[in-house]
Amino acid sequence: MSAAQTRKRSPRGPYVPGREAQRVILDAARAVFAERGYRGGVLRDVAERAGVSAGNIIHHFGSKEGLLVALLEERDIGSNLGPQPQAGDDFIQGLRDLVRRNSADPGMVRLFATLAAEATEADHPAHQFFRDRYAMVQAAVTTGVEAARHAETLPDGPPAEQIAAGLIAVMDGLQTQWLLNPTFDMVRAFDAHLRAIGAHLNDHA
Amino acid sequence: MSAAQTRKRSPRGPYVPGREAQRVILDAARAVFAERGYRGGVLRDVAERAGVSAGNIIHHFGSKEGLLVALLEERDIGSNLGPQPQAGDDFIQGLRDLVRRNSADPGMVRLFATLAAEATEADHPAHQFFRDRYAMVQAAVTTGVEAARHAETLPDGPPAEQIAAGLIAVMDGLQTQWLLNPTFDMVRAFDAHLRAIGAHLNDHA
Repeated sequence: MSAAQTRKRSPRGPYVPGREAQRVILDAARAVFAERGYRGGVLRDVAERAGVSAGNIIHHFGSKEGLLVALLEERDIGSNLGPQPQAGDDFIQGLRDLVRRNSADPGMVRLFATLAAEATEADHPAHQFFRDRYAMVQAAVTTGVEAARHAETLPDGPPAEQIAAGLIAVMDGLQTQWLLNPTFDMVRAFDAHLRAIGAHLNDHA
Repeated sequence: MSAAQTRKRSPRGPYVPGREAQRVILDAARAVFAERGYRGGVLRDVAERAGVSAGNIIHHFGSKEGLLVALLEERDIGSNLGPQPQAGDDFIQGLRDLVRRNSADPGMVRLFATLAAEATEADHPAHQFFRDRYAMVQAAVTTGVEAARHAETLPDGPPAEQIAAGLIAVMDGLQTQWLLNPTFDMVRAFDAHLRAIGAHLNDHA
């Protein structure tokens, strides 16, 4: 069965060819921006990789910046945190699952690491996106830490929002170490970090 | 007194004007690469900012890559970890001092964060530099964790090298949060992290 046959039919059938083109362009942009950053990534390289013209990209996304926004909105890594944690146990396990999923997707992790670093500049077009994203993730993780403390799967201690900042930081930082050295086991290192802060893990790996 | 008067005399006097030019070029490169990354940073922008010609930069550094190498060698952030820790107490305090110093130097922190992220690509000219740097820092911090455990300023627990990876990760990750949001207090967040892993701090801030 071909990809075309298995593709879900859109209610807006006539737009499918355009969407297919957008998909191919977004895949190419993801690869180019992950490698060269947004500022270092050249639209012509995206076009070449996608097998379309630069004008075709402008037609679909308006500008290089529009392409970046579409890419970020398409798959917000923050959404990986999933629904608000209901139980403290689920929260810790949810973080471990997230690290495990990320460890299977170096391209996406590199894209976000590179963009987040260059977007710390206030005039970067993704600056506000990353500020909002970190604020959202920070709030979700703080809620999760509080739930985990309530469920006694995390001990009391420093303010929950500071523990949350540390958890987000350690996930980001371990990704850098893993991207630099793919033999580095970030799943195991994250588990060690969870144990070091007194988290109760569900297994004895 | 002018800068020229206070400038230390080099034993290689005749080279001072060249070194001065190199200093100006390195300062400009630091700013441009921090903003745009190495791949996004254009030699012409460095030249313009430094008030020299692109040819002058090539004269001094050979190539854009040579300029990057000079920049990285000039001030290796790893050297901030200072001499090998002698006592466990000094090690924890040394990490806190490092975070405090970094919190006064957003330009340098942004430069390293941006370069480290893009250098995770295996074909980036700084890839080996960052791999070596992280291996060196990892070894130094592991030694420090062992010393701190011996001095009972850090509790026993998961393997020292995994605790070290977590400490490096949390320092890197908190920098991203701070660069995105300068009101974020990374010194306090790092102290909270140290408390959460059971470190004994010398004060009650």
